[in-house]
Amino acid sequence: MALVVHKYGGTSVGDISKIKAVAEKIAEAKNAGDEVVVVVSAMAGETDRLIGLAHQICDIPRERELDLLLSSGERISCSLLTLALQALGYNAEAFTGRQVGIVTDSAHTKARIKRITADRVKTAIEKGKIAVVAGFQGIDEAEDVTTLGRGGSDTTAVALAAALNADLCIIYTDVDGVYTADPNIVADARRLDKISYEEMLELASLGAKVLQTRSVEFAKKYQVPLLVKSTFEKEGKGTMVVEEDRDMEKVLVAGVAHDKNQAKITISGVPDRPGIAGNIFSRIAEKEIVIDMIIQNVSDQGLADISFTLPRTESKKALELVKEVAKGIGAKEEVALDTDIAKVSIVGVGMRSHSGVAARMFSALAAENINILMISTSEIKISCVIEAKYTELAVRTLHKTFGLENPSLVTSSM
Amino acid sequence: MALVVHKYGGTSVGDISKIKAVAEKIAEAKNAGDEVVVVVSAMAGETDRLIGLAHQICDIPRERELDLLLSSGERISCSLLTLALQALGYNAEAFTGRQVGIVTDSAHTKARIKRITADRVKTAIEKGKIAVVAGFQGIDEAEDVTTLGRGGSDTTAVALAAALNADLCIIYTDVDGVYTADPNIVADARRLDKISYEEMLELASLGAKVLQTRSVEFAKKYQVPLLVKSTFEKEGKGTMVVEEDRDMEKVLVAGVAHDKNQAKITISGVPDRPGIAGNIFSRIAEKEIVIDMIIQNVSDQGLADISFTLPRTESKKALELVKEVAKGIGAKEEVALDTDIAKVSIVGVGMRSHSGVAARMFSALAAENINILMISTSEIKISCVIEAKYTELAVRTLHKTFGLENPSLVTSSM
Repeated sequence: MALVVHKYGGTSVGDISKIKAVAEKIAEAKNAGDEVVVVVSAMAGETDRLIGLAHQICDIPRERELDLLLSSGERISCSLLTLALQALGYNAEAFTGRQVGIVTDSAHTKARIKRITADRVKTAIEKGKIAVVAGFQGIDEAEDVTTLGRGGSDTTAVALAAALNADLCIIYTDVDGVYTADPNIVADARRLDKISYEEMLELASLGAKVLQTRSVEFAKKYQVPLLVKSTFEKEGKGTMVVEEDRDMEKVLVAGVAHDKNQAKITISGVPDRPGIAGNIFSRIAEKEIVIDMIIQNVSDQGLADISFTLPRTESKKALELVKEVAKGIGAKEEVALDTDIAKVSIVGVGMRSHSGVAARMFSALAAENINILMISTSEIKISCVIEAKYTELAVRTLHKTFGLENPSLVTSSM
Repeated sequence: MALVVHKYGGTSVGDISKIKAVAEKIAEAKNAGDEVVVVVSAMAGETDRLIGLAHQICDIPRERELDLLLSSGERISCSLLTLALQALGYNAEAFTGRQVGIVTDSAHTKARIKRITADRVKTAIEKGKIAVVAGFQGIDEAEDVTTLGRGGSDTTAVALAAALNADLCIIYTDVDGVYTADPNIVADARRLDKISYEEMLELASLGAKVLQTRSVEFAKKYQVPLLVKSTFEKEGKGTMVVEEDRDMEKVLVAGVAHDKNQAKITISGVPDRPGIAGNIFSRIAEKEIVIDMIIQNVSDQGLADISFTLPRTESKKALELVKEVAKGIGAKEEVALDTDIAKVSIVGVGMRSHSGVAARMFSALAAENINILMISTSEIKISCVIEAKYTELAVRTLHKTFGLENPSLVTSSM
């Protein structure tokens, strides 16, 4: 008898008929002999509806109240799914994030899980019940409601799987696995049968929306076997996210990711003194705004230009702060915000042992006249910031350049 | 400086523009020097929308999950109202029922408050903040979410006012006070300037929807001065609910109430043995269904008919149970459910010292050919169950019979 954590995303529980269908899927797994724990997102559109209400009131809602507001979405879907399981005759019980003991830090709207007891879920399992848990939420030490950021229900599911020492965590979503690129952009993108935690981590943080980055970190840390699968395609095999193996190293590039939720802020005419950059970025970090790439140029007048990228959704908040900081440090010119950029990346553990990958990427983009604005690399990925309008072209070009449409080019066993 | 608890009902916060208007009303009170604590209901229609979703899944949703579902409505309005106050520049903080320490029994969907600490509200007040509390909800000893029944936010407000030793609790609603009868039915119904806790208690429990019964019990028990007032009419004086005084005793009848949310269940052919009625009603009580009137007739064959009334919303659940019980005790005939009834009542502390009130009521109804199906009386009220179709006629007749349209007939000082 296996203990399996199922996670259903918003599109999987988008309306009452879908909720009933999900209840039947869960019932099937339970009938097959599994112990089932379920984590559920808010019904599709609900989180956006609630954010929309908040924005009718103010541009930048206070995040403590925003979290209380948004957490309601998952409480609703969690209650309804539990009722649907009960209607099918199953002994199911609904739990909030607090009730399963998910304690986070206090970084509202993007809190990180500090610990998780899962006591009530364990008790429910012992009694043969199906526990249904509201994803995306927890409480901080002050007992205020926090949320885990977009896609946070994935993290709830993986964290629960880790706490319960589950045999498998299945992330049910609206695609049937992890692809070599977004199939909406690249017609011959391929589903991967398996991918390493590290590659998945890079892909997720680079904009592939299939899994929340934090959830992959958790899965890697606690070695939770993760299966990403379609709710709707019964025959779909999905993608297993597991420890790196030999096959994976043979693959130069596992996938191409892109992220349009990018913005660039540039502070021009900054006095080139030691400590200035530290000053700027520590102020930004205080506001828990996550910075991605940073570039600094020094001009011949001893003035520097500092540019950095960040999620577009955070750019309004950051811009105000940066303007203030820029004034404080005596920057000579205006602070500029550019929201018309995107990031394209290639990822693969095979890069570690192969050279020339970056050169091939840059040449391929250049051949299409795509200008590279910023570059960032790690052992297993290369990212380029480009103008947003070239995003799709760049993704298709890179997919073709590295032969991702062709499984034979990749490994023998996959 | 007075400490005032404001409670805003669902119609008062029915959309974003109304929420902003309520925020401005609260700001005014705060500017005038009051310490303000706010309790808020779900946005109008939200609770019904959520119940509708649950009923698309099953006829009789399990109440533990229903409570988790419904409590979301108040969390949403509470977050939004707090954001609106913050947008006006006020230091406001949103709290759930749990966060202000509202602990209830486990009677889901109609839980009773056992205790309330209000610690976080006290801290907020000390810091000069406006505390905004989600009404209608608490948690039980097992830390499961409970709700306090329709109108439960009134009880949250009064309980908070009691715990905080507040100077006043204002219930803002869509009518400008307590009327001698429903103004939608009786054109010349009058607003009462004041009414005693006891009369209000009877009126509320008899179907006047202006206040939840439990909230009045709480107000009476802890001597919380209660003002019922319109959110929308700035000039409205409202009705004070206070301790009984001499003026009130001069009034024979303070008001006429009616309740269409009534149903009657009849068990026919019950063996007339001791303990049978006890058996039936203890089984019903176990399910926490509240029974109103009970009548038992014994026929000449030694068989009894037992009828009782209960809220129509509970009748489906009760009918199933009663059918089971009837079989168990060897009742000879079918159990019948009649949902086509209503209750009309007259209430007044003056009845204690005046006789003949009941006779006048019965005669007035008889003069209109309205048949009385059941009667129930207390020291300060008389209720009659009648056919539902006569409800409005009966209310108008009684209002006229006791001269309620005419303030001079009532007391000199009011």
